[in-house]
Amino acid sequence: MEDVTNMYISPLPDSPYVKPFRFNYTQNGKAKSWDLLEVHDSVAIVVFNITRKRMIFVKQFRPAIYYNCISLEDRRANKIDEKKYPASLGIALEMCAGIIDKNKSIEEIAREEVLEECGYEVKVSNLEKILSYRSGVGVEGAKQHFFYCEVTDDMKTAQGGGVDDEIIDVVEKTIPEIEEMLKSQETLASPPSCLFALMWFLHHKADKFRQ
Amino acid sequence: MEDVTNMYISPLPDSPYVKPFRFNYTQNGKAKSWDLLEVHDSVAIVVFNITRKRMIFVKQFRPAIYYNCISLEDRRANKIDEKKYPASLGIALEMCAGIIDKNKSIEEIAREEVLEECGYEVKVSNLEKILSYRSGVGVEGAKQHFFYCEVTDDMKTAQGGGVDDEIIDVVEKTIPEIEEMLKSQETLASPPSCLFALMWFLHHKADKFRQ
Repeated sequence: MEDVTNMYISPLPDSPYVKPFRFNYTQNGKAKSWDLLEVHDSVAIVVFNITRKRMIFVKQFRPAIYYNCISLEDRRANKIDEKKYPASLGIALEMCAGIIDKNKSIEEIAREEVLEECGYEVKVSNLEKILSYRSGVGVEGAKQHFFYCEVTDDMKTAQGGGVDDEIIDVVEKTIPEIEEMLKSQETLASPPSCLFALMWFLHHKADKFRQ
Repeated sequence: MEDVTNMYISPLPDSPYVKPFRFNYTQNGKAKSWDLLEVHDSVAIVVFNITRKRMIFVKQFRPAIYYNCISLEDRRANKIDEKKYPASLGIALEMCAGIIDKNKSIEEIAREEVLEECGYEVKVSNLEKILSYRSGVGVEGAKQHFFYCEVTDDMKTAQGGGVDDEIIDVVEKTIPEIEEMLKSQETLASPPSCLFALMWFLHHKADKFRQ
């Protein structure tokens, strides 16, 4: 995963992934505009293995995080110095998640993501809806639907790790390890949705899995 | 705030706000690319009024959320139908927050945001650091630093509502109202950072403010 080389920045071509545009409006009589992106709705799933009492995370190299670890000056270089900035800086710890880009139910897409990314075969009926919110308020405002799912070792039928070109590691953490992580003095390489999920789990579910 | 009219979409010009580019790299021998945005680091503050035992939120019209409430078909119209899609759809409930774009300490910027947006005059020593994380893993990977701050009615020295062109309302919620909000069946018009903050507060702080 950390074998990442030959990194450089180039202008955005016509991109299928990032589609920026300007939203124009008049508020209280004053003309305004806001620049934003077209993005997909998504699902995310808090997967907890009750056999071994461990939270299941996914880990992958995230260019957006890596890029933000590079000094403003070094970002302008022709090529990023991978000795000075090892790829490990960009490895994020996240909840299992995926975009809604198929004509299937949200629950079915969540079920498939748990299998593809984490390797657990769950039923739609195993999914407990937590809530839905907006993925952001600045440039992205798509819906994200959050589910909770308890799994057992028996349900692990595949290795996980994603599909196609995805390079994803499945990582487990105990409840004390999660609590330790949330006390970190360093900037966590995780997004707020993951931290919400962990706090939700600690508040509503963790006690029944403690000794 | 909800007086929003004359809404339409246009191509992104050279924008000072949204600066998309392509990040190119080779992982495990395979050439890849990822499209992302240049974004600022930011601060966010959980402000709790201990005199009246209420959480302080800010509310504002967010084009990114509004846009995502519009059907794919209606997005392509020359002008958004504001009867069919009232501006209230795009009003987000958020924590006090701001970008780090001044040459000041993170704590000082947080202190200023609490005053500008919420109207409370706090000291840097009133700010308790919660944690720092990455604002996203997809197109944005900037740092966000989260603080907790208890305020009293005495500290309310200004109206709040933001500076310059900002149109921001200050909103309060009791602890039971927060708990009710987090049980919503509807998609919340809030980002995950706000939900993380609420779960963190309920888990670590709320009990001492309950009757």
